[in-house]
Amino acid sequence: MEVINYLLGYENLKIYQNTDMFNFSLDSVLLPNFVTLSKKTKKILDIGSGNAVIPIILSTKTNALIDAVEIQKEVYELGVKSIKLNKLEDRINLYNEDIKDFYKNSETDVYDTITCNPPFFKKVETSNVNESIYKTIARHEVMLNLDDIMKIAKKLLKNNGNIAIVHRTDRLIDIIETMRKYNIEPKKIRFIYPKVNTESNIVLVEGTKNGKSGLKILNPLISHNENDEYTDELKEYFTE
Amino acid sequence: MEVINYLLGYENLKIYQNTDMFNFSLDSVLLPNFVTLSKKTKKILDIGSGNAVIPIILSTKTNALIDAVEIQKEVYELGVKSIKLNKLEDRINLYNEDIKDFYKNSETDVYDTITCNPPFFKKVETSNVNESIYKTIARHEVMLNLDDIMKIAKKLLKNNGNIAIVHRTDRLIDIIETMRKYNIEPKKIRFIYPKVNTESNIVLVEGTKNGKSGLKILNPLISHNENDEYTDELKEYFTE
Repeated sequence: MEVINYLLGYENLKIYQNTDMFNFSLDSVLLPNFVTLSKKTKKILDIGSGNAVIPIILSTKTNALIDAVEIQKEVYELGVKSIKLNKLEDRINLYNEDIKDFYKNSETDVYDTITCNPPFFKKVETSNVNESIYKTIARHEVMLNLDDIMKIAKKLLKNNGNIAIVHRTDRLIDIIETMRKYNIEPKKIRFIYPKVNTESNIVLVEGTKNGKSGLKILNPLISHNENDEYTDELKEYFTE
Repeated sequence: MEVINYLLGYENLKIYQNTDMFNFSLDSVLLPNFVTLSKKTKKILDIGSGNAVIPIILSTKTNALIDAVEIQKEVYELGVKSIKLNKLEDRINLYNEDIKDFYKNSETDVYDTITCNPPFFKKVETSNVNESIYKTIARHEVMLNLDDIMKIAKKLLKNNGNIAIVHRTDRLIDIIETMRKYNIEPKKIRFIYPKVNTESNIVLVEGTKNGKSGLKILNPLISHNENDEYTDELKEYFTE
């Protein structure tokens, strides 16, 4: 079923979703609020853009031109509709393409910033016949793994450009090692804790191409309070 | 000036300190409260033990026998007095020795657990004539760097034994990479944040010799509340 959701906290932004496909999640809202943007940020790439929620939120924070790539045709089409609905056709270019082809055909050193909310699982787990192909591709590293992402970033980022990703916290060491393999220095990390007394489940990591070493762990983002309500910071970002 | 401080939160524990030397700090109290201990923990090594604050706190949490090594004679002597004062001579053996010599002369695969509050700075910074030699050795990686520590741990830990260290958060990547270099898998990390809205300054890291991959980021430890008072968890650990 195709529905329009409001991105509350972003006044007039709206997003098309299809409840049979993979809906945008908290992760996609955290990332554009985490990535470092400045007046020098002129060109951004969003990898695996889904229904374009990350570019749409980014459009409220920067005047940069945003390229976004989504392999799945049906999800891409929702993204196109969402971009039109928000009148962002001049700011966001959404491509229905495999990022690996996009990468091969691209010039080097093009983007100031890359964002990516990648597939979260390391391997395809026991096949679940009830899970749609859309969800499988979005959730698993079927089409794109960490090594692919950082290899792409190394080529497409300008010198000292940044890549920011959101991922499961238990992949932190893989993320750091893969970044360093491609000369992307982890510079900024923020951990998301569901509650103040729980382990972190989600992590935001930003690295700089050919950056100097020197890592900051930003203040903790605690998503829920004792009453299972969103904390104030989360309410600013996102309301269901 | 030599003073006796109470380790409040630990009922009757007391510790000798010399205000001209390096006083034990919050870090030394956090580490024994972080390290994984079980009934199988029979033998512990504390590296760079200072005035033995870590072994003394550990003695309240485990029945293990604790070896502790401190290179500086004057600090070591305070440690010996503190151990006697707390009647822990049968539980803690403090050695006045360079850990590198201790390591060379030791058998392999001896300890279930190693703790270390190592020197915090990467290089000796601009020499400060007012800083005593005690503080210089304790604070800088003059005598012992991360590579030394993990090399020592690799030899002295039993298979699947743990090493837990406390360090500056900005050294996190070096810590992880050095652990992995010596087949010590980072398994458990906890970040200390001075306040809920500040970056992390201190990190606790535990790794397992020949351990499988799989990292947990424990709940955040926020040390001070809005009124600059210790938070409840800290009060349990430590009172000035």
